[in-house]
Formats: sequence, structure tokens, C-alpha cells
Amino acid sequence: MAQPRIDFWYDYASTYSYLAVSRIEPLAQAAGVALRWRPFLLGPIFKSQGWESSPFNLYPVKGRYSWRDLERLTARLGLPKFTPPVPFPANSLLAARVALVLADADRPAFSRAVYAAEFAEGRDISDRALIAEILARLGHDAEAVLAKTGDQAIKDKLRAETDEAARRGIFGAPSFVTEDGELFWGNDRLEQALEWARGKRT
Amino acid sequence: MAQPRIDFWYDYASTYSYLAVSRIEPLAQAAGVALRWRPFLLGPIFKSQGWESSPFNLYPVKGRYSWRDLERLTARLGLPKFTPPVPFPANSLLAARVALVLADADRPAFSRAVYAAEFAEGRDISDRALIAEILARLGHDAEAVLAKTGDQAIKDKLRAETDEAARRGIFGAPSFVTEDGELFWGNDRLEQALEWARGKRT
Repeated sequence: MAQPRIDFWYDYASTYSYLAVSRIEPLAQAAGVALRWRPFLLGPIFKSQGWESSPFNLYPVKGRYSWRDLERLTARLGLPKFTPPVPFPANSLLAARVALVLADADRPAFSRAVYAAEFAEGRDISDRALIAEILARLGHDAEAVLAKTGDQAIKDKLRAETDEAARRGIFGAPSFVTEDGELFWGNDRLEQALEWARGKRT
Repeated sequence: MAQPRIDFWYDYASTYSYLAVSRIEPLAQAAGVALRWRPFLLGPIFKSQGWESSPFNLYPVKGRYSWRDLERLTARLGLPKFTPPVPFPANSLLAARVALVLADADRPAFSRAVYAAEFAEGRDISDRALIAEILARLGHDAEAVLAKTGDQAIKDKLRAETDEAARRGIFGAPSFVTEDGELFWGNDRLEQALEWARGKRT
């Protein structure tokens, strides 16, 4: 039997995607499930339902709760003190394009580093210098990678990925999609998505 | 040391409150945590943030996902096939007032029966005959209880509870509030709320 697989859809501006990124690799490995890391942009999807910003900003009571929820959850996961960036949400376009320039195998480490800078250090991931610093630290030729983010093929690829996310019914991040098309939304559904991928239904 | 306690805030129209109601008693008992069952009305809270209906109706893509999520979760919990009522959301005013007429000790069984009629049988819980049937089945004097729902004191009590929910930062249901004021939102946070109540922070 082929190894089961899930598509892991995430946006670099998404707080709860940070939690999933911090957990997904050991859990998927233990479950014997392969991962495809698929960065996309939530912004166009939020806009299509009338949201011009993060729901945390649009609904301040829910937003205040979510910051506290994230403080508690990062503490439980043993992550550094949760420190959201200002402004929030960050513009995640550059990070997403860089991720698509990188080889599939290099995407997880880059993603972990971006989220750590954003939510453990409160840095602005739309800053080209920060992304260059992360790339260099991971052993990439930062200038060469960043130059490729201007290629039309990379711009088109990110747009196509975002369109595919919308077609699959994705409305938030992180989301997990199994090979049979089941959608699971949110860091809280990661375990269930992995179980579903392995054929466990109840 | 006094037994820890959480306040369990729920709305009879809320799908995920149904899941929490189906799980909370054995989990709280195992954790040694006492429960206060506090029905309230989400409608006024949704209205105050500009929502005139359930977010499942206002955001159809998220709504479709949520129905599927509920089908999967009810199956995992061994509950009957998830069967939402038409119209959704139900008007939960009568059920909430009845719950406040009943003694604290009678509220859990009444609540379970209301949610089962609503989400396992798809019945309309705003129907006085259905509520009377449930009350009679549980051994209450249905007409006497229903008559009391017209008392000003009961109407005022439900309004005060809903106001208190809003003051505590509640914006959805189910919500769990510990004695030290920590708010946990959603069926997915039930275990964490119970741990917090017991003093476990990470």
C-alpha cells in the first residue's frame, strides 16, 4: 500500500498555522503520513467573503480571546512566549513566494524559521532583510532565491495554489486535506486529519 | 481545598454546544471539577458584532465545512447521525427560559434531551409541544414549568445571564470559564479548561 499523504495548507501570516508548523512533522512521522507543504494566501479568500483584515481585528472580542488562547497554547507546547508582530496580520506575500522558490525538502525548515521570527520575536516577515537573513542562516543563496520571487512563474504558481485552496473549500489556515478530499480546518484538527489519512474514521 | 468549578456557558441553538453537552459530565467527574450549567442567548452577542444570523449561514463556505465537521465528530463520539434542524439556527429562547425555571440539578438531563431532539432528530426546539414532551418524559409538570417561563423574573434572569456572558468576554458557545476568570471557547477546549480548573497550566 502506498504511504498515505496529506496536503498541509498554511499562510505565513496565520497564528494557528504557527502552532501546526511546530507540531506537524513528528506527528506525521509517527503516523506514517507524508506531508505536502502548500503555502497560500488567505487574504484573497478573506476578501471574497467580505473581510478586509484578519477576523481578529474585525471582531475585537474574539481577537482578544485568541491572543490569550495562543499564549496558553504556545506555553503548553513549550514554545517561546507568544509575541505577535505589529502590524498584524503581516503581509505574507514575500515569504510565500520564497517558499515556492525553494525545493520541497527545504520548505519545512524555512517555514519554521519564518514563524519563529514572526510569533516568538514579533518581527515583520514582509521585511526583505529578515527573509534574507533566514535564508542565509539555512545555507541558501539569499539573493538568488529572493531574485527568483520576481519571476512570473513563481507569482503565477502562488496564485494557482491560492485558487486551488479556494476550490477545495479552504476558508482558513491551517487546513489539512487528505487524498480522498476530506478537509480539516485548524491546528485542533491535525490529529484527526492524520487519523483520517490512515483510514481511521471514528 | 474546595472542589474546583467551571461555568459551562451554552446556547441551545449551538451545534458545538451539543457536542460539549454530550461529553462534559463524565470528563468533569473524572477531573473532580464541579459544573455550573449556564444557558444564555448568543443572538444578542452576535447582533452586537453585526451578525444577524449564525456565522454558518453568513459564511456559506465555512458553514458547509462545519456541517461536515459535525458529521465526523458526532460519528467519533458515537452519537446518532447528525441531523440539523430546519430552520437553522433554531430560536432557543423558550428552551433557555425553561432551563432557568428548572432546578440546577435538573438542567443537565433537560439539556441533553433538548440537544438530542434538535441535532439527532432535526426537530424544532422553539416548538412548545416538543419542550412539553421533553419535560413530561423527564417527570416534570410540563404545563407548570412552561407557565413559569412567562414570569418577569425568569425573563430578567436570562437577560442578566446573557449580559454576564458578554461581560466575561464570551462571543461563542460553548464557553468554559474557570473561577480565576480564564475563558476557553469551543468544544475543543473542554479538556484544557478542566485541566486549568485543576491548576494544570502547561
